[in-house]
Amino acid sequence: MSRQKLHNIVFGTDTPAGRWFDLIVIGLILISVITVILETIPSIGDRWPVFFNKLEWSFTILFTVEYAMRIYAALPRRKYITSFYGITDLISIIPTYLGLIITGQPSLLIIRVLRILRIFRIFGMGHFVSEGAVVVQALQASRTKILVFLSFMGISVILLGAIMFMVEEGQNPSINSMPEGIYWAIVTLTTVGYGDTVPVTVIGRILASVVMIMGYGIIAIPTGIVTAEITNTVFGKTKSNNMICPNCGNTKHLKNAAYCQHCGEALI
Amino acid sequence: MSRQKLHNIVFGTDTPAGRWFDLIVIGLILISVITVILETIPSIGDRWPVFFNKLEWSFTILFTVEYAMRIYAALPRRKYITSFYGITDLISIIPTYLGLIITGQPSLLIIRVLRILRIFRIFGMGHFVSEGAVVVQALQASRTKILVFLSFMGISVILLGAIMFMVEEGQNPSINSMPEGIYWAIVTLTTVGYGDTVPVTVIGRILASVVMIMGYGIIAIPTGIVTAEITNTVFGKTKSNNMICPNCGNTKHLKNAAYCQHCGEALI
Amino acid sequence: MSRQKLHNIVFGTDTPAGRWFDLIVIGLILISVITVILETIPSIGDRWPVFFNKLEWSFTILFTVEYAMRIYAALPRRKYITSFYGITDLISIIPTYLGLIITGQPSLLIIRVLRILRIFRIFGMGHFVSEGAVVVQALQASRTKILVFLSFMGISVILLGAIMFMVEEGQNPSINSMPEGIYWAIVTLTTVGYGDTVPVTVIGRILASVVMIMGYGIIAIPTGIVTAEITNTVFGKTKSNNMICPNCGNTKHLKNAAYCQHCGEALI
Amino acid sequence: MSRQKLHNIVFGTDTPAGRWFDLIVIGLILISVITVILETIPSIGDRWPVFFNKLEWSFTILFTVEYAMRIYAALPRRKYITSFYGITDLISIIPTYLGLIITGQPSLLIIRVLRILRIFRIFGMGHFVSEGAVVVQALQASRTKILVFLSFMGISVILLGAIMFMVEEGQNPSINSMPEGIYWAIVTLTTVGYGDTVPVTVIGRILASVVMIMGYGIIAIPTGIVTAEITNTVFGKTKSNNMICPNCGNTKHLKNAAYCQHCGEALI
Repeated sequence: MSRQKLHNIVFGTDTPAGRWFDLIVIGLILISVITVILETIPSIGDRWPVFFNKLEWSFTILFTVEYAMRIYAALPRRKYITSFYGITDLISIIPTYLGLIITGQPSLLIIRVLRILRIFRIFGMGHFVSEGAVVVQALQASRTKILVFLSFMGISVILLGAIMFMVEEGQNPSINSMPEGIYWAIVTLTTVGYGDTVPVTVIGRILASVVMIMGYGIIAIPTGIVTAEITNTVFGKTKSNNMICPNCGNTKHLKNAAYCQHCGEALI
Repeated sequence: MSRQKLHNIVFGTDTPAGRWFDLIVIGLILISVITVILETIPSIGDRWPVFFNKLEWSFTILFTVEYAMRIYAALPRRKYITSFYGITDLISIIPTYLGLIITGQPSLLIIRVLRILRIFRIFGMGHFVSEGAVVVQALQASRTKILVFLSFMGISVILLGAIMFMVEEGQNPSINSMPEGIYWAIVTLTTVGYGDTVPVTVIGRILASVVMIMGYGIIAIPTGIVTAEITNTVFGKTKSNNMICPNCGNTKHLKNAAYCQHCGEALI
Repeated sequence: MSRQKLHNIVFGTDTPAGRWFDLIVIGLILISVITVILETIPSIGDRWPVFFNKLEWSFTILFTVEYAMRIYAALPRRKYITSFYGITDLISIIPTYLGLIITGQPSLLIIRVLRILRIFRIFGMGHFVSEGAVVVQALQASRTKILVFLSFMGISVILLGAIMFMVEEGQNPSINSMPEGIYWAIVTLTTVGYGDTVPVTVIGRILASVVMIMGYGIIAIPTGIVTAEITNTVFGKTKSNNMICPNCGNTKHLKNAAYCQHCGEALI
Repeated sequence: MSRQKLHNIVFGTDTPAGRWFDLIVIGLILISVITVILETIPSIGDRWPVFFNKLEWSFTILFTVEYAMRIYAALPRRKYITSFYGITDLISIIPTYLGLIITGQPSLLIIRVLRILRIFRIFGMGHFVSEGAVVVQALQASRTKILVFLSFMGISVILLGAIMFMVEEGQNPSINSMPEGIYWAIVTLTTVGYGDTVPVTVIGRILASVVMIMGYGIIAIPTGIVTAEITNTVFGKTKSNNMICPNCGNTKHLKNAAYCQHCGEALI
């Protein structure tokens, strides 16, 4: 098979063969990740170790073949190998080979789960891109606002954790240090509320009440920021008339614009 | 009674008789569902088994009569029988009859709860449709975005669960396998926080803090997506009638505009 | 003092005397509610029962005097007595008098807390009305949508609770009946997650994961509905030019409207 | 060094020296806060008390020098000393000196954490201001609405807590007084759900279910308020430049419009 033809199958999504190739790879990734997850359950993984070992080698060989095909077919090879997909493709096969040299290393098992990252390739297919792009774009536009919000939350949980530690120290067996106070503040402010670290004193409970109401309320801030940006993006898309200025090529116009807002040319 | 007349009563909501029929059926459904729920409470269901058995047969006979009436009155009969409502109507009577043949099967009891699905018929009444439709429409419009978000969340909980398992394995009695790690990640990321699976190591708690803040923040994404769509739908509906002014060509009018807001020309 | 003058003080907020009267009453309400709350703490209420009894009688006499003044000053007396405020004013004094006849009834203590409802009177003051009105208006406009959403949630928790009961029955000591399953579904779907009722089986945990992600996601629906309505109200307020048509009196115009969209009259 | 030159370095962010000074100070603040946090962990702080004492004195001396420099360089000195930053700068050095006089006072340790407040100085840098300002502006604009919402929540938790106390008293060991009932109501309404105070009676659980659904739903109100305000701010900023066309008087232009979108006239 010519390199170009293989490229169309391996990287492309335009031909039936290319789509089938992608679907098979995605299926293999999902099955191999489920296998890794099941293998960690003692009652399953410890009972059939040989079976899981064989299965893992099968996936590794298949992914190795796929990786070799991708390297062969990639047009600028270096670019593929150093890309995000190229690295995750490599990471998904390395652990098994390393397992031959280093034994009894459970962390290798975990690295194999990183295979799931390869599934992001799916988002390069079809209209997922444009749909996801709107959200990503909105998140990027609100990057600084979210950073300011996170800093504010970080400072808040440190101060609240310090106060809680001061209030409950010596009386609460689960808050013996400031980091434990901060952990409590995070658990409470985010409204997760595990219940493993709860206030036991009256003042501690009053402080906790304030933090809970704070956490309940300030969720409105990141939600408001992201919603405003997404609304703006979606709304902007709806209101624009998608006309292109014949003079300057500007595409940003209000829906009822008759003249280009950039150069004054009449829009057709 | 003629088939057409019965059809108006059984399926229609325009006549007083039709509305009464619907209200009675809805009342019967609610009472029968409450009965099934109460029957499962050991101190109630086990004390009066004969009473509940008789009650169940009464409901079944009433719903059977109703089902027969619907089949008789339905104008394209096959369409009704194979419709969502037709199937739920059948499901709500089958379990009791099956209980005569198969005994000691508690799952039959559960299937009877499916009767509650028949209540959806209520949403076909009055202005519930249009109100609910706006929301359903917004959810459908944001389908792909939500799917991308769910995939992102799925990949996140698998990776976070794997890391947590690696960190806490052997030290945390409630995280012994990757599925338990993933369960922890879901409980934490969604801010549910049961407290049955909590990190016990320092690194585990730091990881948990990151996941909690993540979960607290990324709720903004689906909320933003759905809000933007609903805003767009509501806003679009309220603000514009899509009419073009015959004099000046202006297209921006309020929904109920009779005259062009730009030049005063009457809108057709 | 004339009845009109007393009316201005007791009901009005325009005169300094009227504002002072309101502030004193609000202060008394808050202090008396705090007193009731503190009285229920065994280590406080049981130690000084006489003190609390005297305090309660003082508040009751003051509120009785206030109630008498309001009845005297109210212009259409019957209207005040049967109004929401008139009833809450009466409720806040009755329990103490009833306590003379009926003794050892702790529920009377609770009814005294209903006094806090009188604080709503504060919302009739100043610009709280218009600010709160925007939100109330938005909630009323989305009433049907929220009702549909609540029905959907009600049906969901019944079905999810039934499935959970079926899955965990006999294995989970905290889920012994369908109502307990429904309670679990509500605790989980609303992301509260007490941790008193948690799944213990594998299938139960998988179901719980689905419910948690559902609950995490569908919060977007009521938020989206309310946000869209509030945005619409606020936005509509901003975009409107607040002009009144000199011909037909219509006030709803787009910001840049030159002609009335209702009758075509030129706007000044 | 001249006072003006020192001012540019210490307070300014325009010169490389000024930026470096800020970065070093922020670095020192973060390191010193982390030191305080670590010192509270018994296994760390109690093992090397001398080391932490020396470290604390180093930070104190550095911050004292910085504070002296700021006082010297501040142009209206009184204004700096009495400003928020001036006070937090002083607070961050006082505890250590006070520790010489008063010993064995753990609260001094906590006051040292207040140093983190100095980090807010960072928000005075670069474009953080304008980004954060949009959010702060939106929060200020919705101040009254949020206050009304908080009052409503306050009244709700008092009433719900009172009812819960009445229902569960004597049967629930964790609800023995009205304040504990109110604490339960806050934990539940904010969807935190620690699980340390849970209903045990049937009526209590039904009430809890209502409170949970309430809490799940009314989060939509503050979110809606804040989102509407942020949308309004962002939208207003992006969409309009408030210019009036000198030819046709049109006021609706995109922010960067150079020509009127309605008649093509150049905008001044």
